[in-house]
Amino acid sequence: MNGQVNSGPAVVLVDPQLGENIGACARAMMNCAMSDLRLVRPRDGWPNEKAYATASGADRVLDAARLYGRTEDAIADLQVVYATTARLRDMVKRVVTPVEAAREARAHEAEGARVGILFGPERTGLINDDLALADAVLRVPLNPEFMSLNLAQAVLLVGYEWFRAADATPPSLLTTGASRRATKAELDGFFDRLVAELDETGFFTTAEKRPGMLRNLRNIFQRADLTEQEIRTLHGVVAAFVGRKKKRETGEDR
Amino acid sequence: MNGQVNSGPAVVLVDPQLGENIGACARAMMNCAMSDLRLVRPRDGWPNEKAYATASGADRVLDAARLYGRTEDAIADLQVVYATTARLRDMVKRVVTPVEAAREARAHEAEGARVGILFGPERTGLINDDLALADAVLRVPLNPEFMSLNLAQAVLLVGYEWFRAADATPPSLLTTGASRRATKAELDGFFDRLVAELDETGFFTTAEKRPGMLRNLRNIFQRADLTEQEIRTLHGVVAAFVGRKKKRETGEDR
Repeated sequence: MNGQVNSGPAVVLVDPQLGENIGACARAMMNCAMSDLRLVRPRDGWPNEKAYATASGADRVLDAARLYGRTEDAIADLQVVYATTARLRDMVKRVVTPVEAAREARAHEAEGARVGILFGPERTGLINDDLALADAVLRVPLNPEFMSLNLAQAVLLVGYEWFRAADATPPSLLTTGASRRATKAELDGFFDRLVAELDETGFFTTAEKRPGMLRNLRNIFQRADLTEQEIRTLHGVVAAFVGRKKKRETGEDR
Repeated sequence: MNGQVNSGPAVVLVDPQLGENIGACARAMMNCAMSDLRLVRPRDGWPNEKAYATASGADRVLDAARLYGRTEDAIADLQVVYATTARLRDMVKRVVTPVEAAREARAHEAEGARVGILFGPERTGLINDDLALADAVLRVPLNPEFMSLNLAQAVLLVGYEWFRAADATPPSLLTTGASRRATKAELDGFFDRLVAELDETGFFTTAEKRPGMLRNLRNIFQRADLTEQEIRTLHGVVAAFVGRKKKRETGEDR
């Protein structure tokens, strides 16, 4: 949370029913480094012990949650508000995906504006009067035959996109543990040895097929993205075969 | 599900503990139009009534779930396998984000290859032997101080990205309900009337400020993305003010 009191868009739960769901929302918020939770008329009162039971340690989000009697009051200090809904009703309103809402929220936040997202009660979703308070509707594109998300899952998807919008994780990366990627010289050293030993065995039966087979073999090891440690393991594998073969030839193996 | 028997990557739950979590995973899969669920040694046996209780109607995913004794058997027919984990261990392995995994999975599927994703048990995650069976590790970038996702949330995020990778929902779109966007002629017609009536009232106090004020007013209504129905409502608003003023001037209002 980078030491900020409140980070990320405010999550405004309107008429939430089960304390367990409020706790699961707090956990999802903390997964996404969001901390500003606001509750409008939670059915079972507040604070709620069951919320803490499902928060899995996101207690500080629950501790800091603020309670309101009206949605208007819960969003009074905000400048941009999105309302989540699965159903598109007969209403003139801009509808955005979570990706677009996250992009916009980051831009608004960069300009110092406070953003919030409204989530309706578990079964029924937001009422039209609450949707009308929002600048845009946020709708998660999902299987049209099975759209209904539970409350915490909706918070998670929206928060995930907000987190991702500023995340610099590379899409794909090789982790090498304690080792490091092999240099091309190390790869070449292994490959030259492999070929020399294979030449000894008579693996390459015809001279004209040899260049193509060499390329195929090289591609296999090239593609494996080997580490320096793995190159040493492969040297050991070749040495083991060569040693065994030599032993067999001299009769030491039996 | 487009009538396919199995759509999307196989979801392989290894040693899942609670039936409730298996049901929530099935729901998340169906949200994302995925249907191939495989269970490796579910702790509480299979089928499991509690799974159906939390599946919220995703019963057909549970009905079609297949049971295995070993992870190797559960993935035997697959060609590309990702393993989800929050912790990067001392292992030489490519690590991808859900976005990248989804992009790759769609590409593999387009070539007819079957893809699967391994998810470990609730508390401990996948063991290293299972991670070693995978072509790449799938890791969700989240708050590094609070990474732990529950099982169904992990399935949802991975499935969401898979669904989104082929989803054509525009990032931002104005829904207009039963009405349609106003034409520029309709907007102009309203604006001209507004200005004419404002001229009558003496709203524009100085001639030199008039052009700037006109631009400001026009920008307000321009930005509102009005529908044809809303233009008619605004005509009514102007008419009401003009009528009231006329009544007042003729003394009819009191």
